Amino acid sequence: MNIRTDLAVEAANMHKEVSGGIESILEEDNGIKIERIKITSEAAAEAVGKPIGNYITITVNDLSENNREEYEKACICVAKELKNILNIEESASVLAIGLGNGHITADSIGPESVKRLLVTRHIKEIMPEEIDESVRSVSALAPSVMAFTGIETSCIVKGVIEKTKPDLVIAIDALASRSMARLGKTIQIADTGINPGSGVGNNRKELSEKTLGVRVIAIGVPMVVDAVTVALDALDTTGATEEEKRVFFEAYKRMEPLGADMVVTPKDVDSLAKRSAMIIANGMNLALQSALGKEDIDRYTQI
Amino acid sequence: MNIRTDLAVEAANMHKEVSGGIESILEEDNGIKIERIKITSEAAAEAVGKPIGNYITITVNDLSENNREEYEKACICVAKELKNILNIEESASVLAIGLGNGHITADSIGPESVKRLLVTRHIKEIMPEEIDESVRSVSALAPSVMAFTGIETSCIVKGVIEKTKPDLVIAIDALASRSMARLGKTIQIADTGINPGSGVGNNRKELSEKTLGVRVIAIGVPMVVDAVTVALDALDTTGATEEEKRVFFEAYKRMEPLGADMVVTPKDVDSLAKRSAMIIANGMNLALQSALGKEDIDRYTQI
Amino acid sequence: MNIRTDLAVEAANMHKEVSGGIESILEEDNGIKIERIKITSEAAAEAVGKPIGNYITITVNDLSENNREEYEKACICVAKELKNILNIEESASVLAIGLGNGHITADSIGPESVKRLLVTRHIKEIMPEEIDESVRSVSALAPSVMAFTGIETSCIVKGVIEKTKPDLVIAIDALASRSMARLGKTIQIADTGINPGSGVGNNRKELSEKTLGVRVIAIGVPMVVDAVTVALDALDTTGATEEEKRVFFEAYKRMEPLGADMVVTPKDVDSLAKRSAMIIANGMNLALQSALGKEDIDRYTQI
Amino acid sequence: MNIRTDLAVEAANMHKEVSGGIESILEEDNGIKIERIKITSEAAAEAVGKPIGNYITITVNDLSENNREEYEKACICVAKELKNILNIEESASVLAIGLGNGHITADSIGPESVKRLLVTRHIKEIMPEEIDESVRSVSALAPSVMAFTGIETSCIVKGVIEKTKPDLVIAIDALASRSMARLGKTIQIADTGINPGSGVGNNRKELSEKTLGVRVIAIGVPMVVDAVTVALDALDTTGATEEEKRVFFEAYKRMEPLGADMVVTPKDVDSLAKRSAMIIANGMNLALQSALGKEDIDRYTQI
Repeated sequence: MNIRTDLAVEAANMHKEVSGGIESILEEDNGIKIERIKITSEAAAEAVGKPIGNYITITVNDLSENNREEYEKACICVAKELKNILNIEESASVLAIGLGNGHITADSIGPESVKRLLVTRHIKEIMPEEIDESVRSVSALAPSVMAFTGIETSCIVKGVIEKTKPDLVIAIDALASRSMARLGKTIQIADTGINPGSGVGNNRKELSEKTLGVRVIAIGVPMVVDAVTVALDALDTTGATEEEKRVFFEAYKRMEPLGADMVVTPKDVDSLAKRSAMIIANGMNLALQSALGKEDIDRYTQI
Repeated sequence: MNIRTDLAVEAANMHKEVSGGIESILEEDNGIKIERIKITSEAAAEAVGKPIGNYITITVNDLSENNREEYEKACICVAKELKNILNIEESASVLAIGLGNGHITADSIGPESVKRLLVTRHIKEIMPEEIDESVRSVSALAPSVMAFTGIETSCIVKGVIEKTKPDLVIAIDALASRSMARLGKTIQIADTGINPGSGVGNNRKELSEKTLGVRVIAIGVPMVVDAVTVALDALDTTGATEEEKRVFFEAYKRMEPLGADMVVTPKDVDSLAKRSAMIIANGMNLALQSALGKEDIDRYTQI
Repeated sequence: MNIRTDLAVEAANMHKEVSGGIESILEEDNGIKIERIKITSEAAAEAVGKPIGNYITITVNDLSENNREEYEKACICVAKELKNILNIEESASVLAIGLGNGHITADSIGPESVKRLLVTRHIKEIMPEEIDESVRSVSALAPSVMAFTGIETSCIVKGVIEKTKPDLVIAIDALASRSMARLGKTIQIADTGINPGSGVGNNRKELSEKTLGVRVIAIGVPMVVDAVTVALDALDTTGATEEEKRVFFEAYKRMEPLGADMVVTPKDVDSLAKRSAMIIANGMNLALQSALGKEDIDRYTQI
Repeated sequence: MNIRTDLAVEAANMHKEVSGGIESILEEDNGIKIERIKITSEAAAEAVGKPIGNYITITVNDLSENNREEYEKACICVAKELKNILNIEESASVLAIGLGNGHITADSIGPESVKRLLVTRHIKEIMPEEIDESVRSVSALAPSVMAFTGIETSCIVKGVIEKTKPDLVIAIDALASRSMARLGKTIQIADTGINPGSGVGNNRKELSEKTLGVRVIAIGVPMVVDAVTVALDALDTTGATEEEKRVFFEAYKRMEPLGADMVVTPKDVDSLAKRSAMIIANGMNLALQSALGKEDIDRYTQI
């Protein structure tokens, strides 16, 4: 059964039979849950469907009440984890890529995040004397989706990388989860780049060091769940056997009523998407610019 | 099992054991499917959980390709059915109420619809000589939701009705369906007003002739499905017994992971909501103003 | 020459010939400029075109860099001045009215402000035990504009006031200024209600204690300047005589090219409108709820 | 006096002293006014500040009433003029560039236009058998602005051109006009590419055949007027001499009150921008795809 998930922590949980090559640690930092998955062998990578690498999953606390304290804690936690995984010199330049379709709320995390970044590359290039040397060169791009550009997203990104030569790429994207409880509440940071096929299944090509020639850190937030997942969860609660679930899964996939729109999203997707983008953007700003602190949260936004 | 649905056609199908008091007709008009449900007895009304009255369900054809021909057909079909059920004098004034939270895409059908209405009441009141006598007086209100106003929606509506004395109210709202296939594709017109409790379960009070003192026609489009419904559909496909489903239903309701956000919506909710609002608004404009025709579709919009 | 301005401080400056009945004080509070105008006689009121009452004009410092410190200072300053002019018991209930057309950026301050208010009336009415007794009852309404509702705004407001009986109304609106430098940077608080005719000239009727039966505090931010004002400023710089300006004014008013759209707004109106609404909403929240402090800024927003 | 205008027709009118090298024709097509300016000599180009080439200015009729007939006429007129100036083979591929900041209404014409294009390049590349051979390959990009990307727009465009090798570029942008009457009502099509410096003055570099290596057609709509222009118009109406205007111009430029935001836009900029983008996108779709006709207007849009 090919349940769609872009979260390594879920994929690992779904393949507990894998005997080696996966390390898993659960931590708590200032009240925020952090799960670390390390995939270390090709065998494990193939079994769980995720490349070798590190995957950090941060679960933010409930932000539905606009709790500023929890919000700032989430920004700072993302900053800390990101800084750690980035592991770059102060002089290294970064290109942020906000993937996805900004006009579909559930797919807008990438474009909404890059709108809130502190972008500095042009100042460093054009008037370096105006800016402190310690400021990192950051550029940002929201390349939209192939259905609207007619161009593979990876092709646009490659064109821009060749012209601007960043030392590192951070790609931000909406993900698919197998759990409704994770939607808009989990942030995954990975050092493996973006590897579709394992995820929502759009045909944009891989964005990774292999394809782009620079290291690619991926940040993602699950915003959709496959409808079939919701159904399978239901079967689980009734104690259905694996065989029953398999029969169901195949029947379900043929089900007319659900048609092509089997991906579902929670009703409050609008606020979940906006909040997630704000946390990612602030986390990136704090991680990338050493001079910024807690008091600079929400300081950089295009509108 | 209390499956949430605001569609009478679904409620009737879920209660096929009801032996009388429900009339059901399936028609096709210019390629568009129309289901007419008439609930005629109190016993049937109680059994299916919908008040005595007429419910017309229009299923628009696939509009995903922005097919203008099908779009205009849908507008005209809504206009025809609405005009028929309105059954009012040319001189009767109408107040349109766009219910729901315009900031949550899945709940925005009401506010998005009233934005596109031809509103005339102020011209007829202030400079009647500027406007043909045959133009109907139409006013429109999007009262938002209690969480944002602090006021029961029905209370705002009553206040405005007392001041403006319309002859008829048309209330537009997003609905809950039990079928994902109907989301954004079905339009229900009813002469019973809005009766929450049967629907998504928000605590706004009834909007009906009984509570408002004027006849209330309701127009709605299903935009959400209860997650448990998706799960129960799954059980059905595996041939689960009623008892198994009941056990599951109760287990599911307790399920931690799904929490309070069990209502799901399709990923393309943004375009479904906009298109539905456009069809409703154009249908209303054509139904309410006898001088308008197909060439006036999309002519009235606030932006 | 009837130069449009909704700011009492500008109107007073334009009528320096008025010999009495106007008191004017300039203060500074924590680096923020505050101008207080008090119109005390009917003669002065008629001369400057503003009713007898108090007008406080707060000029926020430059926020273009998203300076959080200045932003919080502005919120707190608005809260302090508003609290002072409100002068109400803790138990007094408040209805906030967000005037204007939320779909026109330059007119959206009112609706954008009420979206960010802490609304409590429904909780106090329906489940008073859930909420501390010291929480003030606040409700909020964005009645849109007559062109979209077909109903005089004052008529909607009266209907809602009769049903909900607030002790005080706060009305928020976009204003016209005679100075481009004030656009989006000045906040006027007045205890006179909203008195159109002196302002942008839309035909919504007065919202005041006289018309509504409850005290009305008005909060406004200038977002547009009459184009003719920009032109007259130009004449001033060239030392044109009053007679020359009068000739020009009449010629200009007849000028074909400018037509009906003579009202202009700055290019960055989108961010100015959003920021102003945020400052007003936070200022109101802090002024109305004694339990809130600086750490609650931005905590209440609908999206 | 360096009055800002991006419209060649205005620049030519401001330099009537130029004795040769400018041809000017005024036509009417189906009730729509078309002005054709041809700059033929380097001397004239330098005098008026516009490169040698053809400039077509289409003035659409009043669309404020959402007049569908006039709207369709405008789309068809743009299509006809564009097709004529494009003068390309059916097999030639086109890349559309929507310049400007989509988050600032007055600057959003470019991004709003490309959102409504029929994009085909990916289908022709990936599954050519799915699509008629006569369909032209069209791709589209909204590269945002340097302040948000940190990258010169021309640099992003060059990167994408190198990867996708289009035969022609069409660049869409918001322009500055010297007349408020033209805002949102005039569409300029030019075969000279985009040449900033003559226009609003942002520091994005030229997009032209010289810089990009492919022919560049520019489409623009004036959305802003320099505030000083409004003032100078005023001086004109009072019969000020050239010397008086020069004195004023210099004084005005130093004027504190107007600061850096001297660019103004009409209050109804939201609807003007949307309508202009719709006309441009439909005009482009009809011009680029020979199989499309009037019935396909508004058929292609991302939402």
